[in-house]
Amino acid sequence: MSLFEKHQSILENAINALHSRDFYAQYPEHPSPKIYGETADEEGRKQFQSRIGKKYEELLQSGAEDWKGQEESPYLGESLNIQYPLFSPETLISRAKEAFTAWRKATPETRAGILVESLERMKERFFEIAYATMHTTGQGYMMAFQASGPHAADRALEAIAYGFEELKRVPAGTTWDKPMGKFNIKLEKEWRAVPKGIGLVVGCSTFPIWNSVPGIYASLITGNPVIVKPHPGGILPIAIVIAEIQKVLKEEGFDPNVIQLGADTFDKMITKELAEHPEVKVIDYTGGSEFGNYLENLKGKAVFTEKTGVNSIILDSVEDADKVAANLAFSVLLYSGQMCTAPQNFYIPESGIKTPEGTLSFDDFAQKFIEQVNALVDNPKAGPFVLGAIQNPRTCERVADAEKLDAKVLLKSRTIENPMFKKARTATPVVLEVDSSKKELFSSELFGPIVLLIKTKSTDESIALAKELAQAHGAISCGAYVTDESLKETIADEMSLAATPVSFNLTGGIYVNQNAGFSDFHVTGGNPAGNASFTNPEYVVKRFTWVGFREPAKA
Amino acid sequence: MSLFEKHQSILENAINALHSRDFYAQYPEHPSPKIYGETADEEGRKQFQSRIGKKYEELLQSGAEDWKGQEESPYLGESLNIQYPLFSPETLISRAKEAFTAWRKATPETRAGILVESLERMKERFFEIAYATMHTTGQGYMMAFQASGPHAADRALEAIAYGFEELKRVPAGTTWDKPMGKFNIKLEKEWRAVPKGIGLVVGCSTFPIWNSVPGIYASLITGNPVIVKPHPGGILPIAIVIAEIQKVLKEEGFDPNVIQLGADTFDKMITKELAEHPEVKVIDYTGGSEFGNYLENLKGKAVFTEKTGVNSIILDSVEDADKVAANLAFSVLLYSGQMCTAPQNFYIPESGIKTPEGTLSFDDFAQKFIEQVNALVDNPKAGPFVLGAIQNPRTCERVADAEKLDAKVLLKSRTIENPMFKKARTATPVVLEVDSSKKELFSSELFGPIVLLIKTKSTDESIALAKELAQAHGAISCGAYVTDESLKETIADEMSLAATPVSFNLTGGIYVNQNAGFSDFHVTGGNPAGNASFTNPEYVVKRFTWVGFREPAKA
Repeated sequence: MSLFEKHQSILENAINALHSRDFYAQYPEHPSPKIYGETADEEGRKQFQSRIGKKYEELLQSGAEDWKGQEESPYLGESLNIQYPLFSPETLISRAKEAFTAWRKATPETRAGILVESLERMKERFFEIAYATMHTTGQGYMMAFQASGPHAADRALEAIAYGFEELKRVPAGTTWDKPMGKFNIKLEKEWRAVPKGIGLVVGCSTFPIWNSVPGIYASLITGNPVIVKPHPGGILPIAIVIAEIQKVLKEEGFDPNVIQLGADTFDKMITKELAEHPEVKVIDYTGGSEFGNYLENLKGKAVFTEKTGVNSIILDSVEDADKVAANLAFSVLLYSGQMCTAPQNFYIPESGIKTPEGTLSFDDFAQKFIEQVNALVDNPKAGPFVLGAIQNPRTCERVADAEKLDAKVLLKSRTIENPMFKKARTATPVVLEVDSSKKELFSSELFGPIVLLIKTKSTDESIALAKELAQAHGAISCGAYVTDESLKETIADEMSLAATPVSFNLTGGIYVNQNAGFSDFHVTGGNPAGNASFTNPEYVVKRFTWVGFREPAKA
Repeated sequence: MSLFEKHQSILENAINALHSRDFYAQYPEHPSPKIYGETADEEGRKQFQSRIGKKYEELLQSGAEDWKGQEESPYLGESLNIQYPLFSPETLISRAKEAFTAWRKATPETRAGILVESLERMKERFFEIAYATMHTTGQGYMMAFQASGPHAADRALEAIAYGFEELKRVPAGTTWDKPMGKFNIKLEKEWRAVPKGIGLVVGCSTFPIWNSVPGIYASLITGNPVIVKPHPGGILPIAIVIAEIQKVLKEEGFDPNVIQLGADTFDKMITKELAEHPEVKVIDYTGGSEFGNYLENLKGKAVFTEKTGVNSIILDSVEDADKVAANLAFSVLLYSGQMCTAPQNFYIPESGIKTPEGTLSFDDFAQKFIEQVNALVDNPKAGPFVLGAIQNPRTCERVADAEKLDAKVLLKSRTIENPMFKKARTATPVVLEVDSSKKELFSSELFGPIVLLIKTKSTDESIALAKELAQAHGAISCGAYVTDESLKETIADEMSLAATPVSFNLTGGIYVNQNAGFSDFHVTGGNPAGNASFTNPEYVVKRFTWVGFREPAKA
């Protein structure tokens, strides 16, 4: 049985889920940590620990030109000292070129079988991946497990499914028969989906797997070889995924260099050299806007970016202000605001928020919100695990700087103790009050646990600001609390013109930061926060070219 | 009955044809001039003639700021003196913006119904359009009828069908239900296909309808208002189409400015001002590479181009050299080489072409080819009508210049008399012999009836040159004559990497220049001849953004 036959039902379910956008109807048993067996967590942790201080020798990439690694654990406060094989851009490119021919000639079925199998193998290592993710990104354990494990695998499968569907959209061949009156013209026609060339996937330090696998799998399913250039601070998680893909490739008779780890170090980054190489035709990138814009402007390449944005919460009217404040407090604490979907700008009318019990003033809502933040921070069973740790020391500096802005500090940031990791780098949210007239203070992304409560003239101004900033500076998420249906439609319509998705009236166990594979489009591609979306058809079709061939049919 | 209900079966057949890529299985009765009634031709001619020297007052665009027109008939050798309403870019943009809201909020069904209806109305005017096309482009009557009539309508319907399918690809809404163990998270989700904004369609002088309607209909079906900026030398054909769309829009209660003619004059072109306007978000363009590259580099816009290329014929081995020579002679005569698909570079090995009767030398094949060219040119019932007239006097200069190149002139260009139009501007093909070492002579497009027979070291060199030039300078078509299956696959594979479609072994009534809606991708988008393709999914999906909305389901 081929790998395609083995996994055909997974792929078919995934394609159905793409169309219904209701993944869990297809997968009610979606993995949670509990289904992996009682020892899996412990084994994963040991596997991770066994890698510290050693060479990472699992990749099928021979002849390393150097071995280096500079990852540091935000929890342990020290270097992991794991060394990865380093290769020059020229070596990576020439190996990718060699691997290209057989991979592009493989059928979509062959590629899909191999790629789904690699996800099955990855599943066996979700716990190891979770610990690797914690100790590079600072994510809390649950988030590290979910985001780098099943949720990332969902996104990868989604890209495979979209790619497979697109590759099958045009028939491999047909007989074209045109009646010409007295005779017919009969042609045998054939179409090939020709991959663009080498794909480069540039990873980020906060979501080294979740943000990278969509591009990796989208390029691979469409026949492009891939070089993964992770952030030097977050290599291990994605190295494990690459190793699993390479193993399956080798078993199936392909050159494992169809995918390569192209690690580098902070002092000698190879991203630009790879990106500018004429053989690199596809680039996926997650990170800052400046570098993202540079990549988007490279000529002759299909470039997919997720950059930075300014996410908004529009507060107009609520059913239950306490539940709203609790939900938003969780949203800003989650991974200490280091999610690209974390809300930053909270727009609240100076006249207050409408509730069934009457109007709640700006100050009273601010108070409620801060109480909920403090309650969660100070809950020893929740706070440290929801906050996680700060990946980059510069984020702590940004938080400290925020308190010096020309704004009223409603809540100062502080550090808290993580009971499991005494040296963890932590920062709780800083909450500022700003008047809507001081647009320069809230017009850019303040990455990290920084929240601005912005006092607006009215909800109309709130909407106008949220839209304007999304159009000018990008936005990945928007939350709105509004009970009036007509106003809700206004917000949806206005934010749709800024290509920003809106979550309305979230309370309870679902947050504006979260989005789900096979359902929510992550980044829309329609505003400066990024030019691409996980995963819409455009994310896939730009990776290959339809080319037709034809010949008169034999009589 | 709504227009959508009225035309639903047309749309469904079209979507089926997209998937089967066998249009005529869906439409065996595809229109030919004969089905329109005996008087239709005569009436169309009179309608065209009645417009000469007058204001074109059929558009639903009031308040013209000026009336001008500079079209000249390549057949009559004089100005048509038809005046079109002129508007400033600001007027065009502000009217498009006004029309936008209602159009973007219309359902895909409403839009599709209106657009298919407009094609039905266009059908009633195919003859008038044919004469308008002849007398602006210089196309022969049959080509003018087919290319601006049914074949253009096919391409328009194809764009509508692809657009409709993409708009329906994601459900308008669903209930998303995620099991969380002890409880479920239930969200009502909604997705909207948000159009990007004003579309600008920049037309060309040789195919004013065929090359413009795909972009027009693709932008319209996806909810974008459109401004059509035709070539000042070819306005009337597309003005008729625009007038028909406007009439249906008005009848259905929409602002007719959903589509506007934005005509200009040679001395005061408005293309750049429109293209650079921040409200213009989508641009479709057919024309020279320099301006096309400028448009592609504009920031923040989805730009679709068809530029120039160097098309090749690879001659290795043939079943019947006479039939091949006849087929190729027709290909180079058709509309005097003014098709973007016309072949230019004929690669022939110095060792000759293999035939069942033995090898045919380079010189002998050249002789056969020239004989076939002359036979067709000198056939009074075919030559003048196949050649048509030369649209632009500069093309005649280019032909004259070609004879001065550092190459052997095998056949000189000449003018011939058109029995119906004594003043027609004509030029028969010039045929040159060039050695493959003189790459500078054949590395750019020599638009018009200019053919280079290039003597190569071998078929391998022929393939390498065809591929290299396509990759470096673009190519829209390639013909190959080869009887060996393995070599055929080599050519297909190599040219696929240059994203160039290949027609193999064409003889008889089908030519490398021709391509059919719902079947052949016109331009692939994968080489410098253009970044877009009529019509692949990418051509449609880049015109709108998927944006999602969600809210907890009511208990």
